[in-house]
Amino acid sequence: MTHDTRKSNENSIFIGGKPFMNYVTGVVMQFGNGAEEVTVKARGKFISKGVDVAEVARRKFLTEQNVSVKDISIGSEEFENKEGKTVNVSIIEIILKKE
Amino acid sequence: MTHDTRKSNENSIFIGGKPFMNYVTGVVMQFGNGAEEVTVKARGKFISKGVDVAEVARRKFLTEQNVSVKDISIGSEEFENKEGKTVNVSIIEIILKKE
Repeated sequence: MTHDTRKSNENSIFIGGKPFMNYVTGVVMQFGNGAEEVTVKARGKFISKGVDVAEVARRKFLTEQNVSVKDISIGSEEFENKEGKTVNVSIIEIILKKE
Repeated sequence: MTHDTRKSNENSIFIGGKPFMNYVTGVVMQFGNGAEEVTVKARGKFISKGVDVAEVARRKFLTEQNVSVKDISIGSEEFENKEGKTVNVSIIEIILKKE
């Protein structure tokens, strides 16, 4: 793993099944620790939650830091489900940036 | 309502509780009817479904028409819930464009 990749991962928040505010706090803390950009990543059913996390972090907790949405990308990933069948899942990446 | 607004609404698909493929078919049909751009709009819990619709339409049904993601935006809307309380809901708009 290169230094750049590691740095990028450090500034990412992967959305999963934990409580909503855990992820909001994670985003806010990364900016608090000096990150210029934080990427919110989610897939499948967690995509809605990912958008909510990005919006709540930006509008409720980071307004004074002038954080805005720099870029959003969507895509698809293949993964193997429990039955061993390859299925597609949608992904989203939302890059928040301090102005 | 101006002509431009009407035209824009005609080329939008609002994601809701109907079966998934209804929306995919809707997107594909709008391109089939000559649309240059189709916007997939969703809010709240339907955002994940909206991303899936855009991805499946683009990758499975519109590959020969070279349809790609032109732009994605997220935001928040206020609405009044059943108890009369104002709550925020996240929204997404995904613009698909024929190359």
